[in-house]
Parts: sequence; C-alpha cells; structure tokens
Amino acid sequence: MIAQLGLIGCGLMGGSFALGLKRAGLVKKVVGYSKSPTTTERARRMGVIDIEASSALMAASNSDVILVAVPVASTGAILKTIQSLVQANTLVMDVGSTKLEVVQAAERALRGRFPCFVPAHPIAGRESAGVENADADIYVGRRIVLTPNQRTSPPHIALATELWQALGGHVSLMTAEDHDTAFAAVSHLPHLLAFAMMNAISGQPQGKELLALAGPGFRDFTRIAASDPKMWRDILLSNQESIMEQSRLFQRALAELERAIVSKDEKTLAEVIERASQVRAGWRLASGPSQS
Amino acid sequence: MIAQLGLIGCGLMGGSFALGLKRAGLVKKVVGYSKSPTTTERARRMGVIDIEASSALMAASNSDVILVAVPVASTGAILKTIQSLVQANTLVMDVGSTKLEVVQAAERALRGRFPCFVPAHPIAGRESAGVENADADIYVGRRIVLTPNQRTSPPHIALATELWQALGGHVSLMTAEDHDTAFAAVSHLPHLLAFAMMNAISGQPQGKELLALAGPGFRDFTRIAASDPKMWRDILLSNQESIMEQSRLFQRALAELERAIVSKDEKTLAEVIERASQVRAGWRLASGPSQS
Repeated sequence: MIAQLGLIGCGLMGGSFALGLKRAGLVKKVVGYSKSPTTTERARRMGVIDIEASSALMAASNSDVILVAVPVASTGAILKTIQSLVQANTLVMDVGSTKLEVVQAAERALRGRFPCFVPAHPIAGRESAGVENADADIYVGRRIVLTPNQRTSPPHIALATELWQALGGHVSLMTAEDHDTAFAAVSHLPHLLAFAMMNAISGQPQGKELLALAGPGFRDFTRIAASDPKMWRDILLSNQESIMEQSRLFQRALAELERAIVSKDEKTLAEVIERASQVRAGWRLASGPSQS
Repeated sequence: MIAQLGLIGCGLMGGSFALGLKRAGLVKKVVGYSKSPTTTERARRMGVIDIEASSALMAASNSDVILVAVPVASTGAILKTIQSLVQANTLVMDVGSTKLEVVQAAERALRGRFPCFVPAHPIAGRESAGVENADADIYVGRRIVLTPNQRTSPPHIALATELWQALGGHVSLMTAEDHDTAFAAVSHLPHLLAFAMMNAISGQPQGKELLALAGPGFRDFTRIAASDPKMWRDILLSNQESIMEQSRLFQRALAELERAIVSKDEKTLAEVIERASQVRAGWRLASGPSQS
C-alpha cells in the first residue's frame, strides 16, 4: 500500500495511473499538480486526485511514489525542481514516449537520487488527451516498457513492475537506446507520416472537397494525426536522430514502389506490395484486448 | 425487379452486391463467373449466385444487369469479351477504385454500347477479400461514386443510382478525372505509404523485434497495408500520374516537418503538427455507420 502518490501532470496518462491504483486499493492518498489550475481542480472533482497541490514541489513532498506525467521536454526541469524531496526509498517514474533524453536529463537532475528513477513508457493512450478521458482500464493488457540502466536500484524496478502489473500492464525491460530506436520505427515515424499526409491534403486548394471524399481506410490511417501537438513536438525533437534514420529507410522503400509504378513494372510492383501485405496480414498486436 | 444479374468476379465487392440485391428482393436470378472455378462454386454454395457460369460470356448472356467486379486492369478485357451480348437496355457497371482508365477502356471495348456502362466506385471494402467475406451490409451508409460522361445514357445512370441506393449506399456523381485526382490523395497515396512503411520496417535486420513492439497506433496506421496486392498493383498503375503528384506533395509536407526537427525549431514544428492535428480532429467520415 502506497501512503501517498504524488502526481505531477494530471492528464490522460497520469490520471489513468492514479485511477487504476485507487481502484486496485493500492494507494491511500493522491496529491496532484498540473500546470493549469483548472486541470488540477477538475482532477480533484473527478476523484482522480484527493488533494490539489499548487506546485510540483508540493505534490512531491512526502510522496512514496512520484509519477511525472508531462511532455518529455519538461520532465528534466520537473525532476530538478523536486530533487531535494526524493528520499532513498521514493520511487520516481515518468511515462514519456522517448527515453534516452529523459534518462540523461534525470541523471543530471536527480544526481545521487538517480537510482530511484525508473523510466517508463506505457504503450497506451488515445488521441483525446486530458484528465476528462482518464480511465483506470487504459493500461489493461498493454505493454509497459521500463528502461532502467546499471545505476537504477533493483528494488525500485521491482516496485515499478508491481505497480504497472497491478494496473493490468505487461512489463518488459529494454535499454533506453533500444527503446528509442524501436519506437522511432513503429510509433514516431507513423505519426510523422500521418501529420505530413494531413498537411499535404489540406494544403491543396481543393483540400476540403478531398477530405469530404475520404473513407474508412483514410480514417484509420490518419487517426494518429489528431494526437496532441505539444506532446509530439517534444517526442520528435527528443528522438530526432533515430526518427530521421527511420524516415530515410521509409523514403527508400517509397522510392522502390515509385520506381515500379513509373516504369510500369507490374511484376516488381506486385512483389513489393505482396511483401508489405503479407507482413501486415501476419502481424498481431502483441498484447492487449483482442482487437484486429 | 431484375430478371437476371450477371456477376463477373464473385469476390467481396461483387458478392456483396449480389447478396444485397437478393435481400432487397430486387433480383430473380444471379448467374456468376469467377476466374477460379473454386470461387464460383463457393459463391453458389453460399447462395451469393444461383447459377455457376463457366465463362464471362455465359454470365453476361441474357443478363439485364452485368456487374464486372474484377481488378481494374482486367475490366477492359472483360468488357471486350461480353460486348456483343450487351443490349441497348442492359446496364453494365464496374466497381473499380480508379475510373479514368476504365472509362477509356470501356469506350474502346463497348463502342456503340458504351452508353450502357455506368462506372461505379463504392467507397467500401475490407482488407479480407474473397466471397467468403461477402456481406449484404457492406454498402450500407457508404458513398458510391458514379463517373458517367456525356455519352452515358441517363436512364442507365438512373437505374444504377436506384440499385446502389437499394443497397443502402449514398450515390454521388463526379467526372472520372476529378474522381481519380481525389482518390489519389485520400486513398491511393495512404495505401502507397502504408506499403512503404511495412517494407521499411520489415526490411531491417531487427524487423521482427520492431514489429513485436508496435502498438494500437501502428495497427490502425498500417491496416490498409494488408490489402490485396493484385488489386492495388492495378490501382497504382492505372492512376499513376495523380498518385505521383500526390506523393510529391506529401514528400514536400514531410520535408517541412523534417526541416523543423533537424533545426530543432520548436515553434515551427509545433505549428506544423498543430495544423495537421486540428484538421484531423475536425474531420468526420462523411457517411457510413457511426465510427470514430
């Protein structure tokens, strides 16, 4: 039982974490802080947090577990602010979608308390952000990637694992480097492409007419383009190198298709599409509620 | 009441058309032909068709309505084969995703009977093709684009409209040129990008590990990559020019994002993402069952 959870950032991810722990009966009191007082107040009225904190410091003070659930570029500054309040047995986590920069920022910010920090990336979320969408079930069946390094305290890793499992998550461990390379490919690049495609279409003079004709394929392909701009600005900047490399590989694959189209090379084109189609048809979401 | 529907191509689209008309009580007899005799037999056993035809000619013979539901590149050859059986009051339609090349092929193939041909593109479908997935409801609430030209017979357009409406579709008319430009943007390009992304990921040495980490965003973004390779080879080839132009616009939009990332231009990057995010958040599937 956690006597006090300090929640810094009462949005979709943080709010859902608090609600899940409450439902599991694992936390006595949640002290929450958000940059916007309206959000903090809404979180309290919704029962996501019990006490409104007027600062990150106040939310961290006397908390056994501190969850920093803010856009990745702000995580370092928050950790620096609360550093003096982190005790040897305090567990500190984030929920950011990129990990290398966050781990480096945490090393600088937390210094001697860095072993208390267990970097976490729950592969969950929705396009509709905000505490009003917080949901105790959001992590059920989802993969939760933790990226500790050699300095991270094993008991802290064990506690982090327990908490995410209590929320229904499947925990796995990776290095921050491997994490960022992998998610550049399967998450950050798709977002980048979806943003680019929305802009390419809506930037055309007849953009509105085009969008009116779009069907279910377009709907699914572009769903992630509605994601939170600030959050994704931070992700794209903080994992720049891997994303640019994945974009280069993507553009090479696109060029292969275009060459076959322009040269009317039916056979090659069919082969290249077949390769993509077979891999996708054979792919299944690893964990999570059964959805096709 | 249609005395006889001739179905050439008993796949998902054609089979669903036949099932829908049967359920609406609008057709007495369906004579069906598929290149693969197994498919034709399965269609009969499923009740999609009543009589197995051993050739396209036999399916067309004495049919009041002929639906050619084969990959777009094969449509011209089929029309040429059945041309002599098309009477002045026969309605001939296709269901292809590109229209300009099909209309040109139909002009050459049907000659004096070209006015009987009403080119149709139902904005419906699934990744799982085949008659076994045929479904009378597939066109309910979906947009059906017809692309007649000045030579097309108005009574034939009226009958085509009635039939698709009887299946629950929302019919709209466009020129074949406008159709192909628009669908290059909102359908063909997304497919091209999804194929390219699957290949870019699976072509990496650690491709399998990457795919194992992919989450729900990836699932939706790549869903269309599982589409039928032969069908999409034909679509990409037959609408080459518009697709290449849309790809160029997409690559320009991607370059805009990449420039902001590489130069760490937070402000511009946030603005460019915001533009995409707002347009997508404000977009709704025009017609069709309520799905987000």
